[in-house]
Amino acid sequence: MERAIHTHLAERLCSRQWRDFLAALAGELADDLTTSHLRGLLRRTGERFARQRALPGMTTVAELQAAVNAIWTDLDWGWLEIAEAGDHLALTHYCAPLAAGFGAGSQAWTTAFLEGVYEQWLRQLGANQQLRVTQAGEPDAFGTVGFRFGK
Amino acid sequence: MERAIHTHLAERLCSRQWRDFLAALAGELADDLTTSHLRGLLRRTGERFARQRALPGMTTVAELQAAVNAIWTDLDWGWLEIAEAGDHLALTHYCAPLAAGFGAGSQAWTTAFLEGVYEQWLRQLGANQQLRVTQAGEPDAFGTVGFRFGK
Amino acid sequence: MERAIHTHLAERLCSRQWRDFLAALAGELADDLTTSHLRGLLRRTGERFARQRALPGMTTVAELQAAVNAIWTDLDWGWLEIAEAGDHLALTHYCAPLAAGFGAGSQAWTTAFLEGVYEQWLRQLGANQQLRVTQAGEPDAFGTVGFRFGK
Amino acid sequence: MERAIHTHLAERLCSRQWRDFLAALAGELADDLTTSHLRGLLRRTGERFARQRALPGMTTVAELQAAVNAIWTDLDWGWLEIAEAGDHLALTHYCAPLAAGFGAGSQAWTTAFLEGVYEQWLRQLGANQQLRVTQAGEPDAFGTVGFRFGK
Repeated sequence: MERAIHTHLAERLCSRQWRDFLAALAGELADDLTTSHLRGLLRRTGERFARQRALPGMTTVAELQAAVNAIWTDLDWGWLEIAEAGDHLALTHYCAPLAAGFGAGSQAWTTAFLEGVYEQWLRQLGANQQLRVTQAGEPDAFGTVGFRFGK
Repeated sequence: MERAIHTHLAERLCSRQWRDFLAALAGELADDLTTSHLRGLLRRTGERFARQRALPGMTTVAELQAAVNAIWTDLDWGWLEIAEAGDHLALTHYCAPLAAGFGAGSQAWTTAFLEGVYEQWLRQLGANQQLRVTQAGEPDAFGTVGFRFGK
Repeated sequence: MERAIHTHLAERLCSRQWRDFLAALAGELADDLTTSHLRGLLRRTGERFARQRALPGMTTVAELQAAVNAIWTDLDWGWLEIAEAGDHLALTHYCAPLAAGFGAGSQAWTTAFLEGVYEQWLRQLGANQQLRVTQAGEPDAFGTVGFRFGK
Repeated sequence: MERAIHTHLAERLCSRQWRDFLAALAGELADDLTTSHLRGLLRRTGERFARQRALPGMTTVAELQAAVNAIWTDLDWGWLEIAEAGDHLALTHYCAPLAAGFGAGSQAWTTAFLEGVYEQWLRQLGANQQLRVTQAGEPDAFGTVGFRFGK
């Protein structure tokens, strides 16, 4: 039964209004485009999203995390944790609704949305243009996915 | 103030979780594809959606309307009214969340989703393959849009 | 049809998860308690709510309105407009979910929740203890209700 | 982190619109009434809810479970599992939003809502008036709670 609860909670991460629509859209997009093209589309979508929801100016990693999470909480998109790790930042996003919306089979490309969002936000804050956000590892059933911001 | 209330109610038609995401996705899709291509994508998305949420068998227009609205109510996608009009059916969909989600500027193509859904559902019920669902008129601010099912 | 749209939009002001529950609870409470007792219960509930969601310090009416609306927007409880009117403040709350949740028949007492919230918030900000928030007029179908803050 | 995910998922069981309101209302009700009175109020609320959302006629336990879950799914109130157990039915309700809404401290009385709902529904279906629904065990963090229907 534990498993039925987990499935229920994971599905609920995406608003019921868009679950079936997004799953159908994902199916059509995946018929038309390669995974690489889909990642590009979702990354650009993330960059555009980040320009629309610009962060306030800030100076510390803790302030960055708080400003990002004010937006994710408002939208019910889970939350971010940032850890400083020598030459890079490790970003872990918990409980995103992407897998619940677009379907588990789309996680090869939907996570690029978050890559685009985070890279754009970090650039707005003045990060070196050579630094990139790249995905680190596979997302899990609750939409947890890690990213690395660095060279 | 009446106007502020209308704006508020119209925006709320789309779940807050997906409003900014869908607006950004619409922007990227519209940069990449013509309106005609976008209508094709959304129509196929609608057809796929309709296959995933198949209607039960039925024999009257009233039963059809009830079966369709059981799905739309479940998903908070507004509702459908069907009127028999001589050689065709007039379908009016009220309060769809498409404009609130993808943005008013995307209504030239997002309504094709409903065209695809309705045509697929009517075919599943045995409609003549030559009959088509086509949009009749422009959607309004509350997501109301008319379709015509006939030759 | 205009009317069906209005009804749909007004009902949607309350999350579907709680509509039937709150309507049933309102029925039981109204069987047990007088309107005056119910107003007292809801006013105290509002005061408690306001203590749990305290406002930041501020100095102008515009800042007050913005701080209040940050909370109402977060919770999808509509919004407040404040007008300065000689010896009092006129507070108008738009699109509260109380009528959609507890039922139109409960508006004689559910609005006391907002009275309690606003009075508590204004006291936290240092308002004279003799000033009170009192309802001014009846709420409309979209949950709009006016209050007066003064002697 | 596992724990933060669980907390997030458990809180999300209740719609954000009503979480703070219900917590404040629970506080006021608990100041005014004993746990026994509160259980009575919530049980009657459940009975009233069940009369408003009457079940269709049915003949098997599997049909009963399906009809109940059509309602709970519609409202995003989790789901029910029924097991036949000799002289009684064991009812387990998963992922109810009561604890997330009214607060964990209110679980001593909020579960009486479900007792009332289930007893009323079973009576509507013709169950012996001497049979009662009683709670069996304590609810867990995800709103899972067991009931027993029998003598």
